[in-house]
Amino acid sequence: VSSSFSSALPKTLINGESCDSLAVSDRGLAYGHGVFETIRLCQGRLVLWEQHMQRLQQGCERLGIDMPKHLGSELMKEVLRLCGQDAEGVIKIIITAGSGGRGYASPPVIDSQRIVTLFPLPEYPADRAEGVDIITCNYRLPLNPKLAGMKHLNRLDQVLARAEWQDTAIAEGIVCDTDGMVVEGTMSNLFAVKNGVLLTPDLEQAGVKGIMRDFILQSADAIGLESREVSLTIDEFKQADELFLTNSVIGLWPIKQWDEQRFYKGLTTGVFQARIEQLLNEGS
Amino acid sequence: VSSSFSSALPKTLINGESCDSLAVSDRGLAYGHGVFETIRLCQGRLVLWEQHMQRLQQGCERLGIDMPKHLGSELMKEVLRLCGQDAEGVIKIIITAGSGGRGYASPPVIDSQRIVTLFPLPEYPADRAEGVDIITCNYRLPLNPKLAGMKHLNRLDQVLARAEWQDTAIAEGIVCDTDGMVVEGTMSNLFAVKNGVLLTPDLEQAGVKGIMRDFILQSADAIGLESREVSLTIDEFKQADELFLTNSVIGLWPIKQWDEQRFYKGLTTGVFQARIEQLLNEGS
Repeated sequence: VSSSFSSALPKTLINGESCDSLAVSDRGLAYGHGVFETIRLCQGRLVLWEQHMQRLQQGCERLGIDMPKHLGSELMKEVLRLCGQDAEGVIKIIITAGSGGRGYASPPVIDSQRIVTLFPLPEYPADRAEGVDIITCNYRLPLNPKLAGMKHLNRLDQVLARAEWQDTAIAEGIVCDTDGMVVEGTMSNLFAVKNGVLLTPDLEQAGVKGIMRDFILQSADAIGLESREVSLTIDEFKQADELFLTNSVIGLWPIKQWDEQRFYKGLTTGVFQARIEQLLNEGS
Repeated sequence: VSSSFSSALPKTLINGESCDSLAVSDRGLAYGHGVFETIRLCQGRLVLWEQHMQRLQQGCERLGIDMPKHLGSELMKEVLRLCGQDAEGVIKIIITAGSGGRGYASPPVIDSQRIVTLFPLPEYPADRAEGVDIITCNYRLPLNPKLAGMKHLNRLDQVLARAEWQDTAIAEGIVCDTDGMVVEGTMSNLFAVKNGVLLTPDLEQAGVKGIMRDFILQSADAIGLESREVSLTIDEFKQADELFLTNSVIGLWPIKQWDEQRFYKGLTTGVFQARIEQLLNEGS
């Protein structure tokens, strides 16, 4: 926990009130009927805020949760209240379908709940920007187009995949789907550069479409680098020239070792790292 | 809500304390990292209590949640406190992995949380014991042997399947897996009788192994009726001589209409209904 973190402020707001517990009847707990976002607070700015709000809205729509149009500005106010003078941290926003009865059927009127929590920025080793060691998980992600791409609250797949290693020298584990195709890391998206083309797994059947993943794909477009969403095996990914991981909190970590194989941080990876630095420092 | 329900008593205990809200940092909410049971309270007895406790224990083991050996007797005491003089109702027990940080990795020591809630018995139309109308859902369950069979808190599949109909005349929807094989109802298990053999979907890849499903399979054994766990399509199931649904709260509902097709309550279905009546009335 960062020592600069001002502990006097409330750390969680539920529907705008300082509170840190939720009704046990909430469908978020009962069924995982909800979505969440993890947003980087950097130099007092909320990085890619609009994109996070858009994904939250889309997730709510897919799960039949009413998210009022003005909720984005409401959430922004609440986040600013929570942050106070803090300039660095991680904001987690959960929207649940609210309290229901005991059955799976949603009540006729959904009274969605919003939970906003401020966490200190996790203290990862500084050298992760130079490269990380990763492994391949044995756990396989099921194919489910109706839930694919979404950051919903049903995350047992990630919990079980992440439980495969305890060694803190391992930064991430890569997970395949039940067909053996690479999907993502347990908490990050995977990118490869091969013969001058940017590759990342297609997420139509499984996985979470990260906001930082979108930013990388758009950046590739902006710099004229061809990108493709692909369905490839672990062995095929390991033939790449460069490999890296992204998420909204870590930014970008180059991969320097994947299972037994060594990789080197390449030029294209450096270009994306610089773009993320720019995003974090200048907000563009 | 049943009018005989004594509203003065607490309705929820968390870790034995009267309380109806849970920390938002709980992994049950964040990831659905937990399991639950729904137990019938009938004539003051907790039906198939030991079996429910056993499934709870097995689910916790599969999800890396520490469930102390004495927890069964602890839960029993808490349930009896909640029930007071109430003789009829539904007990829901949730065990979560407890509070963790922001990541998928479980903390080194899991401080599991237990939530016990008493609900009134749902008031289904009385004629459902004579037969119900059901539909086939479009939603497909993903194949995931690591989670199959378990009553865990990741239930978006059931929420989305159940959202396909609002007509209260439809009692249940049958859901297939992504391979097109029948798995279960959204809240019940499916049985068929065909040529004197009891059939029910194999649940090694998807679905919840209901406690009442186990009771039916054991009852079949006890009365010398052959049973098989099978992988069949909707059309194949519809060729059965008898069809019925089970769960711990409803007991058994014969199927009288499935999509466009009419069915009739058969003799074998009646035998199982009688056994469940006996279980509820005499506890054997």
